[in-house]
Amino acid sequence: MAALQFQLQHNDSQSKARAGKIITDHGEISTPIFMPVGTVGSVKAVTQQQLADDVKAQIILGNTYHLYLRPGLEVLEAAGGLHKFMNWQKPILTDSGGYQVFSLTGTRKLTEEGAIFQSHIDGSKHLFSPEKVIDIQRIIGGDIIMAFDECPPGGSEYDYAKISMELTHRWLDRCFNRFNTTDNKYGYTQNLFPIVQGGTHHELRKISCEYVSSMGATGNAIGGLSVGEPTEKMYEICEFCCNNLPVNRPRYLMGVGTPWNILECIALGVDMFDCVMPTRNGRNAMLFTSNGVINIDNKKWEKDFSAIDEGIVCEISNYYSKAYLRHLIKSKEILGLQIASIHNLAFYLDIVTKARKHISDGDFVQWKNEMSVRWQQRL
Amino acid sequence: MAALQFQLQHNDSQSKARAGKIITDHGEISTPIFMPVGTVGSVKAVTQQQLADDVKAQIILGNTYHLYLRPGLEVLEAAGGLHKFMNWQKPILTDSGGYQVFSLTGTRKLTEEGAIFQSHIDGSKHLFSPEKVIDIQRIIGGDIIMAFDECPPGGSEYDYAKISMELTHRWLDRCFNRFNTTDNKYGYTQNLFPIVQGGTHHELRKISCEYVSSMGATGNAIGGLSVGEPTEKMYEICEFCCNNLPVNRPRYLMGVGTPWNILECIALGVDMFDCVMPTRNGRNAMLFTSNGVINIDNKKWEKDFSAIDEGIVCEISNYYSKAYLRHLIKSKEILGLQIASIHNLAFYLDIVTKARKHISDGDFVQWKNEMSVRWQQRL
Ligand SMILES: [Zn+2]
Ligand SMILES: [Zn+2]
Repeated sequence: MAALQFQLQHNDSQSKARAGKIITDHGEISTPIFMPVGTVGSVKAVTQQQLADDVKAQIILGNTYHLYLRPGLEVLEAAGGLHKFMNWQKPILTDSGGYQVFSLTGTRKLTEEGAIFQSHIDGSKHLFSPEKVIDIQRIIGGDIIMAFDECPPGGSEYDYAKISMELTHRWLDRCFNRFNTTDNKYGYTQNLFPIVQGGTHHELRKISCEYVSSMGATGNAIGGLSVGEPTEKMYEICEFCCNNLPVNRPRYLMGVGTPWNILECIALGVDMFDCVMPTRNGRNAMLFTSNGVINIDNKKWEKDFSAIDEGIVCEISNYYSKAYLRHLIKSKEILGLQIASIHNLAFYLDIVTKARKHISDGDFVQWKNEMSVRWQQRL
Repeated sequence: MAALQFQLQHNDSQSKARAGKIITDHGEISTPIFMPVGTVGSVKAVTQQQLADDVKAQIILGNTYHLYLRPGLEVLEAAGGLHKFMNWQKPILTDSGGYQVFSLTGTRKLTEEGAIFQSHIDGSKHLFSPEKVIDIQRIIGGDIIMAFDECPPGGSEYDYAKISMELTHRWLDRCFNRFNTTDNKYGYTQNLFPIVQGGTHHELRKISCEYVSSMGATGNAIGGLSVGEPTEKMYEICEFCCNNLPVNRPRYLMGVGTPWNILECIALGVDMFDCVMPTRNGRNAMLFTSNGVINIDNKKWEKDFSAIDEGIVCEISNYYSKAYLRHLIKSKEILGLQIASIHNLAFYLDIVTKARKHISDGDFVQWKNEMSVRWQQRL
């Protein structure tokens, strides 16, 4: 049982893209990687079997805020952690709950100590502090756990972003203090990733990258992006952060994004991604495919009996037709949500698998530029 | 390509139970069999892969009323029939739509010609006549299609049940006339099953069994049961009909029932069953298991990390814990509906598989009596 290791395997000569391998006590992860979001201990509408066999997920994400409220820590601890509770034996990453506390809960009070919030389920009051959030993530048992941070709203002015970043840095010290003085609960090693903040301000991002780097963590995250800023600004800050974070540690860009966002950010040096877009958009009839974006609700698919997507290796995407999926979605059949979610996730995993291959082959940038145009087409 | 054949393989010496084999152009079905209900071209919350691999379904049912309205005949015909549309290559049985027309649609008008009803989706007016219903089922393309009948309400008086039965018999002639003068659309052979009616009246059921038997169909159905009459009356009429229908043809009891209902009716000579209970009850947190009935909503399962059911051969039932399924259902996660539906269906298929084995082994009645008590326990 050992701390997370990262092995760089290929560096693209025409971009900052890299292919690597993350080794955890729950197995290996090939990077770049996309992590499906399993909010409350379930990737919505997808069984763990489908997640492994059809989506080909290598690691999934759990939301600390949601899991803390339901099923709650008592159940998760009695189960022996989230892996056993949901019977998923590959790696899990948990977020810190900060993002949900600041975006989901109506009332909240932010102090030096932490954040007081009300449950969106029953209105009960709770405090998340850096120490509490580490303790909770110890009990949930993710292989990778995240520092508690404040994510300022998109487009925050310098002064606000600076105050927020400084609070995040003080919380970061407290997170690592708690992490370093507590034990792994379930026999395998947990890893704490710090998060860079600083809004869209290079000066702040530089300070934050240095602060985060000084922690010597086994991996580092870039937060506070894709929160309303223009896409070009997101790329710019992402690139700046990648350039100011350790080369020999995985870089995790939180909550991004579309397939073409992911391609661009791989080119900037990002290794890990998560986003609710494939599942959420899938449930809303929007499919990402090898040939472009499909609104499967549209009448034009009514008699299109071709497979949802022949261009990826996924039994579900190859098996069901566009016309059938359209019918299921129009009829509000649960099976439609399942197929759309599995397909979109499989497409995202296919992106990172192919990106990895093209990085090794040396033609990543050319491939990325072609795919980016193709995938954005509206079919 | 040939008409449905039925081979009797074992007759139980202590009851009327029998084990057999139905042979269709889409493959063989071991009897007794339970058929999951695929209302609108989807067994709710279950993929076709899960249906084959986890549930181990050998034949599924489609609802003519629902499929006629959505996706509609134009799409189904363009697809090449329901098998191709949903990519299910094992046998399919379609009902006649009569039951839905009489139970689901607000306004309806019953005449000698047929039934006029309004779509529950958009209120549009439609006529179902015996001829129309055969034509529709030709287009949907089930291996087994059902005659258009009127199912009188449970507890109908003799006079009403007699008038209704006589209408059903006149419609039956028209169904067979249309069936015998139209062709299979897709190269494989369709089979029309007539339906016995007559309410709870032996005299009427006898007349109806004789009328139905005189059709010389490849299989026969018993309708109008489990519509509100006492369970003992249902068994009594079921037994009476089994005794008055051909021995060498499969007997299909429509819309029945609980696991213990199915055991009893197998003992009376029924070969084929369908019911929405496993999927509908599953979606409402009620599980049928080898040890009894579980309300998975109940707090007592909160920390029960044992498998949902170890007593049946189903990867899903063996893999997920009661505590996890409870959490999913409480959290209104779609995955909860999937797991509960797959488990309950797998349990129903396990019942008929085991019944078949015990019929062959010669200890069916003893086994049935033990299981009936055990499965009805509330856990
Ligand atoms: Zn996102
Ligand atoms: Zn039923």
